[in-house]
Amino acid sequence: MFVLVLSASLAFASEPSPLQDFCVADNTSPVFVNGVACKNLSLVTANDFTFSGLNIPGNTSNKQGFAVNLVTVDQFPGLNTFGVTVERLDFAPKGLNSPHSHPRATEVLTVIKGSLYVGFITTENKLFSKVMYKGDVFVFPIGLVHFQYNIGDCEVEAFSVLSSQDPGVVRIANSLFGANPAISDDILSKAFMLDKKTVDYIQSQF
Amino acid sequence: MFVLVLSASLAFASEPSPLQDFCVADNTSPVFVNGVACKNLSLVTANDFTFSGLNIPGNTSNKQGFAVNLVTVDQFPGLNTFGVTVERLDFAPKGLNSPHSHPRATEVLTVIKGSLYVGFITTENKLFSKVMYKGDVFVFPIGLVHFQYNIGDCEVEAFSVLSSQDPGVVRIANSLFGANPAISDDILSKAFMLDKKTVDYIQSQF
Amino acid sequence: MFVLVLSASLAFASEPSPLQDFCVADNTSPVFVNGVACKNLSLVTANDFTFSGLNIPGNTSNKQGFAVNLVTVDQFPGLNTFGVTVERLDFAPKGLNSPHSHPRATEVLTVIKGSLYVGFITTENKLFSKVMYKGDVFVFPIGLVHFQYNIGDCEVEAFSVLSSQDPGVVRIANSLFGANPAISDDILSKAFMLDKKTVDYIQSQF
Amino acid sequence: MFVLVLSASLAFASEPSPLQDFCVADNTSPVFVNGVACKNLSLVTANDFTFSGLNIPGNTSNKQGFAVNLVTVDQFPGLNTFGVTVERLDFAPKGLNSPHSHPRATEVLTVIKGSLYVGFITTENKLFSKVMYKGDVFVFPIGLVHFQYNIGDCEVEAFSVLSSQDPGVVRIANSLFGANPAISDDILSKAFMLDKKTVDYIQSQF
Amino acid sequence: MFVLVLSASLAFASEPSPLQDFCVADNTSPVFVNGVACKNLSLVTANDFTFSGLNIPGNTSNKQGFAVNLVTVDQFPGLNTFGVTVERLDFAPKGLNSPHSHPRATEVLTVIKGSLYVGFITTENKLFSKVMYKGDVFVFPIGLVHFQYNIGDCEVEAFSVLSSQDPGVVRIANSLFGANPAISDDILSKAFMLDKKTVDYIQSQF
Amino acid sequence: MFVLVLSASLAFASEPSPLQDFCVADNTSPVFVNGVACKNLSLVTANDFTFSGLNIPGNTSNKQGFAVNLVTVDQFPGLNTFGVTVERLDFAPKGLNSPHSHPRATEVLTVIKGSLYVGFITTENKLFSKVMYKGDVFVFPIGLVHFQYNIGDCEVEAFSVLSSQDPGVVRIANSLFGANPAISDDILSKAFMLDKKTVDYIQSQF
Repeated sequence: MFVLVLSASLAFASEPSPLQDFCVADNTSPVFVNGVACKNLSLVTANDFTFSGLNIPGNTSNKQGFAVNLVTVDQFPGLNTFGVTVERLDFAPKGLNSPHSHPRATEVLTVIKGSLYVGFITTENKLFSKVMYKGDVFVFPIGLVHFQYNIGDCEVEAFSVLSSQDPGVVRIANSLFGANPAISDDILSKAFMLDKKTVDYIQSQF
Repeated sequence: MFVLVLSASLAFASEPSPLQDFCVADNTSPVFVNGVACKNLSLVTANDFTFSGLNIPGNTSNKQGFAVNLVTVDQFPGLNTFGVTVERLDFAPKGLNSPHSHPRATEVLTVIKGSLYVGFITTENKLFSKVMYKGDVFVFPIGLVHFQYNIGDCEVEAFSVLSSQDPGVVRIANSLFGANPAISDDILSKAFMLDKKTVDYIQSQF
Repeated sequence: MFVLVLSASLAFASEPSPLQDFCVADNTSPVFVNGVACKNLSLVTANDFTFSGLNIPGNTSNKQGFAVNLVTVDQFPGLNTFGVTVERLDFAPKGLNSPHSHPRATEVLTVIKGSLYVGFITTENKLFSKVMYKGDVFVFPIGLVHFQYNIGDCEVEAFSVLSSQDPGVVRIANSLFGANPAISDDILSKAFMLDKKTVDYIQSQF
Repeated sequence: MFVLVLSASLAFASEPSPLQDFCVADNTSPVFVNGVACKNLSLVTANDFTFSGLNIPGNTSNKQGFAVNLVTVDQFPGLNTFGVTVERLDFAPKGLNSPHSHPRATEVLTVIKGSLYVGFITTENKLFSKVMYKGDVFVFPIGLVHFQYNIGDCEVEAFSVLSSQDPGVVRIANSLFGANPAISDDILSKAFMLDKKTVDYIQSQF
Repeated sequence: MFVLVLSASLAFASEPSPLQDFCVADNTSPVFVNGVACKNLSLVTANDFTFSGLNIPGNTSNKQGFAVNLVTVDQFPGLNTFGVTVERLDFAPKGLNSPHSHPRATEVLTVIKGSLYVGFITTENKLFSKVMYKGDVFVFPIGLVHFQYNIGDCEVEAFSVLSSQDPGVVRIANSLFGANPAISDDILSKAFMLDKKTVDYIQSQF
Repeated sequence: MFVLVLSASLAFASEPSPLQDFCVADNTSPVFVNGVACKNLSLVTANDFTFSGLNIPGNTSNKQGFAVNLVTVDQFPGLNTFGVTVERLDFAPKGLNSPHSHPRATEVLTVIKGSLYVGFITTENKLFSKVMYKGDVFVFPIGLVHFQYNIGDCEVEAFSVLSSQDPGVVRIANSLFGANPAISDDILSKAFMLDKKTVDYIQSQF
């Protein structure tokens, strides 16, 4: 017997409207703009609107027991000007998509199969959390810190959409303790009310 | 042996940004605005951000061999102000999501498992089409007519996101031949260059 | 004696705001962006903000008895970043602007002189229609299918604005039955509940 | 012989997208929002999308020899959420639509018949001006001061669209010299480098 | 004893959202777009996000007794895509920031120290004005004419933010009487109900 | 001798445009919408556009040595629909505005007097930091984690604008370790690679 857990996480943001039928990203363009410059319209084919591989599970053999395949406009040029990013998430048992936020996207998570404990924290520091089951959908508002945690004994497969062609991920622990160059431990110890030795230890983990 | 075909169709549009952490729709409000008025913040719970049931296959025992479970802000109040709608699509063998457009949303379709023939037509009447396989993602630009057709012998399960909390569906055949009250057959026969008898026949089907 | 019927059709959409006084389109630019790259500011003259010729009636000697002169940013560079397109429409007696939608624009139609039967169909397949007289204005919401039909015995002259610098026209019959390459008659016969022979006949007309 | 001069002035702005098929303004609503609250959907008829009377010439028997019939969402509820305002302008010989700006709208002016001298001033104080003839279209960018002047001997009829459902008109002379309460003549004399007596005289004219 | 008057004037507008973490303006780019093309991401340093010099008082030894240091995206490339402009204003006693509007920005003025008489005029020609004291904040809505006047005997230092990376300033008197080429005195005398000699005199001042 | 350090921090976001001259928030309205419902226009006075008190230093006698007076639409109704929030920040020597992000706003910080060490971390975990001096301006992009630290021996006074009428503050340490109800220490220990005892200790501090 096998238990297949599949979740779909979707996220959205408010970006400028497209000004033509489509504007397939030319990721090799030497010109940089807000978004990405487009391919010559006459060179566009149906393949430009297709991305493949979301059926392939990510490798969760890591400390967090979690893998994500984030498909932004960088990997999928057809998303350009359409304000959306697709991702697949895989969780090992006890796997964690650690607290993070998306600076440019709301996120919606749908559990296709299985269960997942999810939550977000409001700007009033209020936690909204829930155990989601197969077929459940959950919304993570733009810019708020959220997490997904596989509390079960089975692998969880996940599917994600975020509301920006380049939503960004601010992975909190990495952003603060793994920044390059490092954030001064004066600042981190004061912010987390920790001694510097503990801060240095946490920094050494990232 | 079984073959499970699961597709995810995602779609997006450019809507106003949220002006607070969230604004859960109060679908019983007597006040109508652009979008939906919100519940009192103090009454909001995690359940407001959850919708259940996308794991349940739709009933495809109909002429088109197709079913869709569209989850807009009407069914899922937590989507309010976040510019997205979720839907599940099921296709019987030869099932068709007939040509339609979304007036307020771009759509992206991901085939999780199985295959599906999809296409959209540009404003230059150019068809971009493709057979999609498990794990493939496809983008349908806002407002353009598109379709999905199960050319295989297996059932196709589908998952959809559209970029508006109320994207709308303009189902072309129904919109033109099934409008209420009916569109004059003078207009339809001239538009489709058909005799009125054929127009009347088509109208009788919707 | 002559009867002059003049209608003005206006349409709008929500596009990004201009970020400078103006950004006159450089339609010869090798760089493609969301919208159009701009001319060097120092080369701009008053002529860039002017388009001429909307006084010239279109040639309605065709099957539909209809002509349109659509002035997008392609023809009128001064419209770039300003989110609007101008058009003139001419109808012969019984002339039809066949059912179509604008993927990126709301439309408003004003009858300056004469009368015209107009309508749009909502996403609930409800038809809103009306006979418009000289000086009447009518709104066609973004993305909804609509039509204008000259039910009178006189020529109708029309004037249009749409809310995008490139609103696009999805001419339903042409989009479905005249796509290039053709949409499979499997799909069209199923969608319109017609036998393939009739579908093939309609396709041969476009 | 007669000379009919008809101009159409169109203008646009970037407003939030509609979040439903339509949201007809309920101008009697006790609830005030950004824009206007909507009528109950079930009460909407085709008449809500129609405004009449733009065929009626304005009365230009006044000092400026100019009349405008501005049709905003206040007069035409169907425009709500669609970001556009319609207006008709009439000019007597030497009639002037005096320098003004629209705080929330770009404007485009089309001369249907006849001729009109028009211009706008950039933020660099550069004047772009032109004599427009029948069928000419001209764009006035959002927020810039512009004017239209009938330099001919004939009446000019005009047609206008502005890119907001409530674009606003800042009529410069009236705004500065006819404000209520009055702007201090200390300020106006310093701003225009005029003695206070002249300022007081101008103020007495408005 | 000294009296230091410091005011902060802030202003905002609604511009497209950033589509990446940042897009530092490349003001030397030969490519012109809506906004400004960006520097190569790999060349960006912290200096790109810094502008210096708002501590330096402007020279108010001029007719208006007023100086402004407007820091748009032209001077501060890091503002690109972020929709804001910073400015410092200095007023000599009786110094005037003469009536003007910002075509693409709302403005907010905060008096840090001292007092200032400020006002704006609505599209209904209604004046909202107030004497502001140290620590007071005032909002000037987008596109409306407004002014700030130092009614005290002390120097006023001011600080400004406007809601566009290139908000533009329409300085009314200069725009109308100092345009290049000049606006015809036919138009100005009619608009302000002044004889041409007075108009010519005012024009000679700018 | 005294050293006065005054910094101004400004921040912005992309919100819907105003659809009228102004829409002063009615914070007592029983109707909740995206943003805030407005006061009856006829009751609005100049006082509605004024907020007072930014001259008053905050009390920095706390663990972080930091105080902020955030003036959102809740405190200042005149900001409604204008997309901006004002704040004053005060730092004791070694005072810290600990790492945080604004889910709905870009921020710009100007040091009016004195010096401050500031930084933000990109989604690539790259730190951009700088010591700012009197008159320097710094931009913190929307949604990215940033901090301000008084490395000097003097008090720092700060001034802030953020690009939303309700930008929100996600104070990282408080959001994660002080959430209510608490985030499970399973999740936090895994995310920060800390033992649960240390996590519990940190949680006890908030």
